[in-house]
Amino acid sequence: MFIKQTIICLLLLPAFLICGGQQKQTVEMNKIKLLFSIDGEGRPEYEVFFQDKQVVQPSRLGFVLQEDSAFYRDFELVGTERATFDQTWQPVWGETKNIRNHYNEMTIHLRRKANPSLLLDLVFRVFEDGVGFRYRFPKQANLTYFVVKNELTQFNMTGDHNTFWIPGDYDTNEYSYTLSKLSAVDNKELVEKSTDIAVRVAPDPYAVQTPLMMKTANGVYINVHEAALLNYPAMQLHVDRATYSLSSSLVPDAVGNKAYLHAPFSTPWRTIIISDKATDILASKTVLNLNEPSKIQNTSWIKPMKFVGVWWEMQIGKSTWSYSDFADSTDAQGRPIPNNRHGATTANVKRYIDFAAKNGIRGVLVEGWNTGWEDWFGKWKEDVFDFVTPYPDFDINEVMSYAKSKGVSIIMHNETSGSATNYERRLDTAFRFMKEHGYNSVKTGYVGKIIPRGEHHDGQWMINHYTRVAEKGAQYQVMIDVHEPMRPTGLQRTYPNWMASEAARGNEYNGFSVGNAPSHETILPFTRLMGGPMDYTPGIFKIQGYSNVPGRQVHSTLAKQLALYVTLYSPLQMAADLIENYETHMDAFRFIKDVPVDWDDTKIINAEPGEYLTIARKEKNKNNWFAGAITNENKRTATIPLSFLDKGKKYTATVYADAPNADWKNNPEAYTISSQTVTSETVLSIPLAAGGGAAISIMAPDGK
Amino acid sequence: MFIKQTIICLLLLPAFLICGGQQKQTVEMNKIKLLFSIDGEGRPEYEVFFQDKQVVQPSRLGFVLQEDSAFYRDFELVGTERATFDQTWQPVWGETKNIRNHYNEMTIHLRRKANPSLLLDLVFRVFEDGVGFRYRFPKQANLTYFVVKNELTQFNMTGDHNTFWIPGDYDTNEYSYTLSKLSAVDNKELVEKSTDIAVRVAPDPYAVQTPLMMKTANGVYINVHEAALLNYPAMQLHVDRATYSLSSSLVPDAVGNKAYLHAPFSTPWRTIIISDKATDILASKTVLNLNEPSKIQNTSWIKPMKFVGVWWEMQIGKSTWSYSDFADSTDAQGRPIPNNRHGATTANVKRYIDFAAKNGIRGVLVEGWNTGWEDWFGKWKEDVFDFVTPYPDFDINEVMSYAKSKGVSIIMHNETSGSATNYERRLDTAFRFMKEHGYNSVKTGYVGKIIPRGEHHDGQWMINHYTRVAEKGAQYQVMIDVHEPMRPTGLQRTYPNWMASEAARGNEYNGFSVGNAPSHETILPFTRLMGGPMDYTPGIFKIQGYSNVPGRQVHSTLAKQLALYVTLYSPLQMAADLIENYETHMDAFRFIKDVPVDWDDTKIINAEPGEYLTIARKEKNKNNWFAGAITNENKRTATIPLSFLDKGKKYTATVYADAPNADWKNNPEAYTISSQTVTSETVLSIPLAAGGGAAISIMAPDGK
Repeated sequence: MFIKQTIICLLLLPAFLICGGQQKQTVEMNKIKLLFSIDGEGRPEYEVFFQDKQVVQPSRLGFVLQEDSAFYRDFELVGTERATFDQTWQPVWGETKNIRNHYNEMTIHLRRKANPSLLLDLVFRVFEDGVGFRYRFPKQANLTYFVVKNELTQFNMTGDHNTFWIPGDYDTNEYSYTLSKLSAVDNKELVEKSTDIAVRVAPDPYAVQTPLMMKTANGVYINVHEAALLNYPAMQLHVDRATYSLSSSLVPDAVGNKAYLHAPFSTPWRTIIISDKATDILASKTVLNLNEPSKIQNTSWIKPMKFVGVWWEMQIGKSTWSYSDFADSTDAQGRPIPNNRHGATTANVKRYIDFAAKNGIRGVLVEGWNTGWEDWFGKWKEDVFDFVTPYPDFDINEVMSYAKSKGVSIIMHNETSGSATNYERRLDTAFRFMKEHGYNSVKTGYVGKIIPRGEHHDGQWMINHYTRVAEKGAQYQVMIDVHEPMRPTGLQRTYPNWMASEAARGNEYNGFSVGNAPSHETILPFTRLMGGPMDYTPGIFKIQGYSNVPGRQVHSTLAKQLALYVTLYSPLQMAADLIENYETHMDAFRFIKDVPVDWDDTKIINAEPGEYLTIARKEKNKNNWFAGAITNENKRTATIPLSFLDKGKKYTATVYADAPNADWKNNPEAYTISSQTVTSETVLSIPLAAGGGAAISIMAPDGK
Repeated sequence: MFIKQTIICLLLLPAFLICGGQQKQTVEMNKIKLLFSIDGEGRPEYEVFFQDKQVVQPSRLGFVLQEDSAFYRDFELVGTERATFDQTWQPVWGETKNIRNHYNEMTIHLRRKANPSLLLDLVFRVFEDGVGFRYRFPKQANLTYFVVKNELTQFNMTGDHNTFWIPGDYDTNEYSYTLSKLSAVDNKELVEKSTDIAVRVAPDPYAVQTPLMMKTANGVYINVHEAALLNYPAMQLHVDRATYSLSSSLVPDAVGNKAYLHAPFSTPWRTIIISDKATDILASKTVLNLNEPSKIQNTSWIKPMKFVGVWWEMQIGKSTWSYSDFADSTDAQGRPIPNNRHGATTANVKRYIDFAAKNGIRGVLVEGWNTGWEDWFGKWKEDVFDFVTPYPDFDINEVMSYAKSKGVSIIMHNETSGSATNYERRLDTAFRFMKEHGYNSVKTGYVGKIIPRGEHHDGQWMINHYTRVAEKGAQYQVMIDVHEPMRPTGLQRTYPNWMASEAARGNEYNGFSVGNAPSHETILPFTRLMGGPMDYTPGIFKIQGYSNVPGRQVHSTLAKQLALYVTLYSPLQMAADLIENYETHMDAFRFIKDVPVDWDDTKIINAEPGEYLTIARKEKNKNNWFAGAITNENKRTATIPLSFLDKGKKYTATVYADAPNADWKNNPEAYTISSQTVTSETVLSIPLAAGGGAAISIMAPDGK
């Protein structure tokens, strides 16, 4: 590991500092500059410049604490420290082999002019592509345990930017995106009509979620999010539609408080990524860099993988999670009455194992294997699943030995129905059960209103819950894929076994609801994926005709589904469709077989949120490259210069493209596959259908 | 086991029943009669008579459900069933060897005249000494999972009775009692001034708790409580001061709901014990009988015991639970800094073990043995204790082997600080740790605001928590003594390992606060103890001079402290004082050595709540008797006819009495011990000092 680290500290003298209260403190790197000051009422403020143009106007910082309701004014500067940090580190898995963490840091020490004179530190880090800052409550005699009633952080925008947003909701991130001016943000109608989302709590019509992607009239891209969300609620943003001021709105707990803290404590980082190039936003590693290094010492058991599974068949109504159609119904012998449409049968799972083994897919997810699904949903009940009792038609031991004989891993499924208390009290038993039965990974789920009642998916209690599950997973060497958690904030650096999360509107909505607009996957990398990998479950080949509901289909071409394996990064990547739909398109499935889930390098070729996106990635420890290009509802041509290839070397490129007459709505499953020899001089020009995409494998001779 | 059981069922014809809606249905036994009717608006009502005089006026029954806000009117009678039950059963431990469960039962089947027409059953049981009734939600298509918003049960009194009450509080039962007319109930002032109670939430100034003890102007005693409180919140009573109507007020959850239920479901029983003799109230087994038989098959490991322990020394400020005086303070070597006043040291615990072994005391409680006490209290923090990490000066293995060599059991202490979620997720680990270290019993504690935040000690979630801990205890063969739980409702029949609870103002208040009035222990048996045993921690010998606070003392004579071992029944009974205070009074300590904690028979000799009380009990499997007599602040003479002794047999009675000049305030530690030969003809006449009492052992020759 290459580490270059320089720390320069300047502890200014108090005498200087008192008068220094009015002067602006600056920290910058290349095009980004951050200014800190304290106004006449002792209120700390920061502002941010990009290429010497203001992108964040002076914005307030501070809190309302239970212990001090004015913990945002009457501050005086006590000292400033500065440091420079430059380190290159290697993630356990990811989009690139090396990640450079390079920033200039300024720490501001503040003291409240009040009795008692409480202390607060502000830590600002300026990177080449943006800033991160956090609050630090130092250890101090008069503030030990304390309660955050409100965080008052502002992000004051300079204009009425175009904004990609979803409603600020305490319990879900699964909304469709809206593109509007900041002045037009109003989530009420969208929240009301989003009846396909199980639990929606969005009390503020002018609140939105982060990562929030904005674009100024001058073509500057601004992304606001947070990093290292630990022991604190998720931050949503209230939009002042007149002033374009965004202000922190923390998800409350059951009694309306925001966070229970114990000094010394550092909040999550508030992040602002800025560039005049959309591709820079996607290439940013700032959120990841602001997280702590891995807490897990031995990471050798953490292995990215692709998987198939018993899942999409339930999403489209072909089979059921439950064994019976009715809870509490038993036959004369006291046995539950089977509905004969149960998906997770021993025989069906073996079919998936066979397919996975034959095609080099490492994992098989099995949902609906355990008792409790007959009335799991919407009851807000404490005890739903016990996580250890298989249905009578799922022979867990037989499946275990069969999978082992085929070299396939079964992925455990622990749906909690939102009853986190029930999961916590059974967690050790559940993880022991997994290990005893050969499972090394688990997909967890939180569909429903949370228990503890009154808590929310994105509040401090649940943030701590997800962290506890990840830590318990590390203890048992279990990889985690969390559905319905808070949206990621780069914690995969700290907990590399927390492989992926859902926390956004996934491909599943194309199965059971009105679906996702063709632009959806061009927005996700600029929003949800800024925080970390998403288990989007791409790879649906049967685009139309899978559903009894008229007009329902996946809003994509088949070729675009392939492209998503590159454009939506995840170390756990599902091939989500039914085996029979793959078996009729094994030529296209070849791309899914070939595409890796771990990379040495990533190039963002071109990108515009809501419009298009092309990414190329280099296979881990090999010289093969894979590219994906997607478009929204408009057809266009993807131009892909292959200049990232080794000079002079000849590669074989296989292009999985939309057929000339393809169209997401009228002819989505038409694709072409063609091969050609390419070099670093080659520029591919690939037509993308409306709602279409293209996937390209670029194989080096012998992978070298 | 003797079982005589007769069941007579009459399922009336629907045709009869529809017209029968106006007629009163009666169920009675001896002096008690209950009438059920439906009024003109279809509202179910009951009334109760004692010796043909009304003691409960027509009182409403019903609910506001989330699913049906008028689930209290427009009911029609669908059918009535009647049964008689007569069974005698043996408790695992208790006040008597045999308990007769004899009642007449009437089940009323109701249907709502609404769409859908939901069903409700009412089950009434009339015993010789009172009534119990419960709601039963039958299994039905249109009501499966449902939410109770309010229970509307009334207990409409016939007059402005004298009432012993404590404030209706969601989180504590540790108030002093007030004696007032119903019309004068107002808890506001008492709640405000009870600053010695850690957590108080009493939003209704006219709410009181059960067991509620009332006495009519005609000398009829009426006790209202509940039995078998499982999966439901505790019932408090709102007092209408003008009409003397008491109405059910359930403790709410974090979002204001009362209970989340799943039909079929039966609520706890609402109980009304009635007699013109106060002694009958204390002798009643109706609450116990309304509970289900033991769920634990093998109960051989459940053994009542007396214990001493490292506890009172902390209550009086002599030593500390914590090892350090400050959290997070460590010395140069990173070790916590000892305060040198820590109570649970290996050496100190060995001293208690020695004393217990020498005096035939089976248990030693050790509080403050584990890390976390430095800042355990009042922080509302999730992670406080881990329940498995001893302080550095407590050598758990050495203590374990020393105790074993002396034949003494150490009692585990698990204080949760109110963080029930933290305890639940560590419960298996904690219980495994106990068993690995030879512990067979645990004292749990819930001092503080509950986590899940917004939940209360007496709400449904916590009721289920305590039950889960009792069940986990049964699984690990661990006996439970719960401090700060809901007050008992006879569940010791169902979970006989749930030996005792605190759930009232214990002797500890005499250690750290203004203390308990001399009348307190004459009220407790009529209130708190109606539900089950209390770990009151009697046996304080050093009544005065133990505290630095001027005027602070135990509000009792020493002799009364001995009497409490008989008058306040518990299968876990502490000898709470310091060893050194016992060693200077070993003649008086003899009574504590001798008195059993399990009984074959109990005679309530005389009793008047708030005034006096004399109880005699026969030792389990022996012919020895023990009696206790106590008085309030007035001195009086206890007259005790020993007619319960075997005719013609000579016994040796040892009387531990207040000295002639004794007085709880001025001369509390003066006592006399005298022995005499007695027979069933003997009538003892023992003067009780103001705030005093007497304890008597009556030993049969060779215990036979």
